[in-house]
Amino acid sequence: MPMMPVTDSMFLFIETREHPMHVGGLQLFTKPDGAGPDYLKSLRESLLENSGVRSLFRRRPARPVNTRGYLAWAEDSELDLDYHFRHSALPQPGRIRELLELTSRWHSTLLDRHRPLWEVHLVEGLNDGRFALYSKIHHALMDGVSALRQLQSTLSDDPLAMDGPPPWGSRGPAQPRRGRPDALALLRGAGSTAKQLAGVPRMTAKVATEAFREHTLTLPLQAPRTMFNVAIGGARRFAAQSWPLERVRKVATAAGVSRNDVVLAMCAGALRDYLIEQRALPDAPLTAMVPVSLRSRADAGEASGNQIGALLCNLGTDRSDPAERLAVISRSMADGKRLFKELTPLQILLLSALNIAPLGASPLPGYANHTRPPFNIVISNVPGPRKQMYWNGATLDGIYPASVLLDGQALNITLTNNGDNLDFGITGCRRSVPHLQRLLLHLDTALAELEYAAR
Amino acid sequence: MPMMPVTDSMFLFIETREHPMHVGGLQLFTKPDGAGPDYLKSLRESLLENSGVRSLFRRRPARPVNTRGYLAWAEDSELDLDYHFRHSALPQPGRIRELLELTSRWHSTLLDRHRPLWEVHLVEGLNDGRFALYSKIHHALMDGVSALRQLQSTLSDDPLAMDGPPPWGSRGPAQPRRGRPDALALLRGAGSTAKQLAGVPRMTAKVATEAFREHTLTLPLQAPRTMFNVAIGGARRFAAQSWPLERVRKVATAAGVSRNDVVLAMCAGALRDYLIEQRALPDAPLTAMVPVSLRSRADAGEASGNQIGALLCNLGTDRSDPAERLAVISRSMADGKRLFKELTPLQILLLSALNIAPLGASPLPGYANHTRPPFNIVISNVPGPRKQMYWNGATLDGIYPASVLLDGQALNITLTNNGDNLDFGITGCRRSVPHLQRLLLHLDTALAELEYAAR
Repeated sequence: MPMMPVTDSMFLFIETREHPMHVGGLQLFTKPDGAGPDYLKSLRESLLENSGVRSLFRRRPARPVNTRGYLAWAEDSELDLDYHFRHSALPQPGRIRELLELTSRWHSTLLDRHRPLWEVHLVEGLNDGRFALYSKIHHALMDGVSALRQLQSTLSDDPLAMDGPPPWGSRGPAQPRRGRPDALALLRGAGSTAKQLAGVPRMTAKVATEAFREHTLTLPLQAPRTMFNVAIGGARRFAAQSWPLERVRKVATAAGVSRNDVVLAMCAGALRDYLIEQRALPDAPLTAMVPVSLRSRADAGEASGNQIGALLCNLGTDRSDPAERLAVISRSMADGKRLFKELTPLQILLLSALNIAPLGASPLPGYANHTRPPFNIVISNVPGPRKQMYWNGATLDGIYPASVLLDGQALNITLTNNGDNLDFGITGCRRSVPHLQRLLLHLDTALAELEYAAR
Repeated sequence: MPMMPVTDSMFLFIETREHPMHVGGLQLFTKPDGAGPDYLKSLRESLLENSGVRSLFRRRPARPVNTRGYLAWAEDSELDLDYHFRHSALPQPGRIRELLELTSRWHSTLLDRHRPLWEVHLVEGLNDGRFALYSKIHHALMDGVSALRQLQSTLSDDPLAMDGPPPWGSRGPAQPRRGRPDALALLRGAGSTAKQLAGVPRMTAKVATEAFREHTLTLPLQAPRTMFNVAIGGARRFAAQSWPLERVRKVATAAGVSRNDVVLAMCAGALRDYLIEQRALPDAPLTAMVPVSLRSRADAGEASGNQIGALLCNLGTDRSDPAERLAVISRSMADGKRLFKELTPLQILLLSALNIAPLGASPLPGYANHTRPPFNIVISNVPGPRKQMYWNGATLDGIYPASVLLDGQALNITLTNNGDNLDFGITGCRRSVPHLQRLLLHLDTALAELEYAAR
């Protein structure tokens, strides 16, 4: 029974009904030419027959009803694949809207701790004949970046390759996920489970405090209070859409800024319009926390390593002119002083939380005297496939990340590049962020405005 | 903010991920003659427009993340009907099997405590053109019998009546649910929330002990240990099927026993075959706990009152002869000595639990020295409509109850009469009760054997 590193088990400890700790991904596919009416049925059957299940996808908490049991993984000897891999359909009229509605529901429910912590949903019934996969995995097993990599590892740039493994499989022999940390935890933890358990609250406080140690005083804390920085419920809304990378690239070139600056300006414009619509735009500009991957290139091939940095970005939402907003954002991103160095995904999450009640850490050390949130929203740009990808002959049209929310951060925008597109996934608390899907319209408007300004 | 009686709030306290505390009902409908392709769409729209939401369906725990908040109900001022009433579809081939699979998943997930504690799912895509409704409501709001009554109250025996309210509505003016207990709790609790809260664990112990007081010594405790009497996980399987009441009636008349005796004999035969198949049939006969409603006739019209008695029934599963089993069951049911009088649904549940960890009552007082479960399974026969019923012109083909499970009771059979049929709903722990749906086949065989024996 391998011991769990504290950075993994913590995601089990801090999970509540209001804060499910899984990440998700929605993939949209066009069926291969000549796919018959039984295509999905036989696809499903062939995936179920595929016996290769990565060891990570066989792990469950050793004692699911006992916090002590969160410290070790057990192998599920009788994996019930039929439970984890589910077949679903969209109701009429089978638009993307119905797909997003279903994804929202799935992203809202807790994973069963008595089983390996993942689900994959195969979705039929899109009115344009396409199909979708929604995958969900617990943050204790994989962070969002690794989860997206895992999905990508099942794809191929060859439309004729028919050996694509299921989302829970892998092409090569199964790899240990996080070589060093796991081994380290094993050494540390093997003889001292009780000690490790006793250390959990202290360890968490440390994880949180370390993230703040150098920053408590220097953290600019200029972020205004917004409707997004509130306590949240358990229900989620998810929205997703793709935009051509070329449109973003042209704006970036014309304005002499980075593509990521343009993406942030799209988000800034959309957030401004949304908040105006909700009569909730604060006078001060919104601040985004923008995670920056610190993975080395050598890591890139595998879902491993978890060091992340983060920039605080002034989104310039107080400016009505899109070009001015873009300039503010670009300057803010170029100002490297506000860099958090080498955070773990756990620390990133803790940074975004107003309240981690299960740990008795409410408010967090660094927040004790803060009346305003350190930032208003997390906007992540996660690396995706650069080429057009395929999965057993089906064309990948989109791959949209669904994120974790915590009290204090009711909205998250995560995007990824996918061939010639940028795929945006927006996750929000269903109660705190009404009409979330309108952000898609506003993103579209924001890009058009930036193009107009840069013409 | 009305105070919650302890018997209600207890269902919030004892709920865990492994023990969701909601009851469910699956209704199967044939569309009215001449229903067009847009029938379900317009049905859904008309139900969403129906503004009448019973006050019960607007209640949520006052402070969902705080146990103190479980003691009072709050009214949800901005009920998000679109969240509670969901539209879903079956994947191909759209058989009853796919419907049961989907129902199983829905019955496994926790309700959102930030919202009124119910969901209704409208299901399209059955290959025979029918449609279904799955309704789910928290036990803190309504026990299973009341939930079934609420569903029935929306039906009519007139196929032409088109004024059927949605499952969350009512025909008449909204009624207070439990007149006396609520008022009593209000009086008791109004000035003493803290006192009531302090009393919760004591109160629970009392609720549990009272149920056992007279019975700890007399409880026969002849039930063997079986695969059903184990700790459970959170995932469920649900199976359902109808049998003609006339077939049961004929056997009862021929054998000179009650119809309920025949139903219990069907269950006994099915359980025996299932356990043989699983190589898990104990030598001693299984004992069923059979709840008996003690509602007065005056209560019958309304979803109110919760007094229930219970018989312990020897299921005779050690006998291979169906006629002998029926005789054993009939004698056992006629033996009134083992009657529990006036239990609440909470006590019934506590009786069936090996372990109520959140209350620190593990094992329960009465169980301290018991090495064997007091009974093996709960089999409930709940009153249903005697006539063929309709809902806005659609014919009700079946109404199948889905129950609550607790540690120690991994399987539950609840049935109801519905016009000319008996509708069985079987709820099981997905891990502990493999191939649950085979119990349907075995029930069918058991009835055929009883008919053969009674010919």
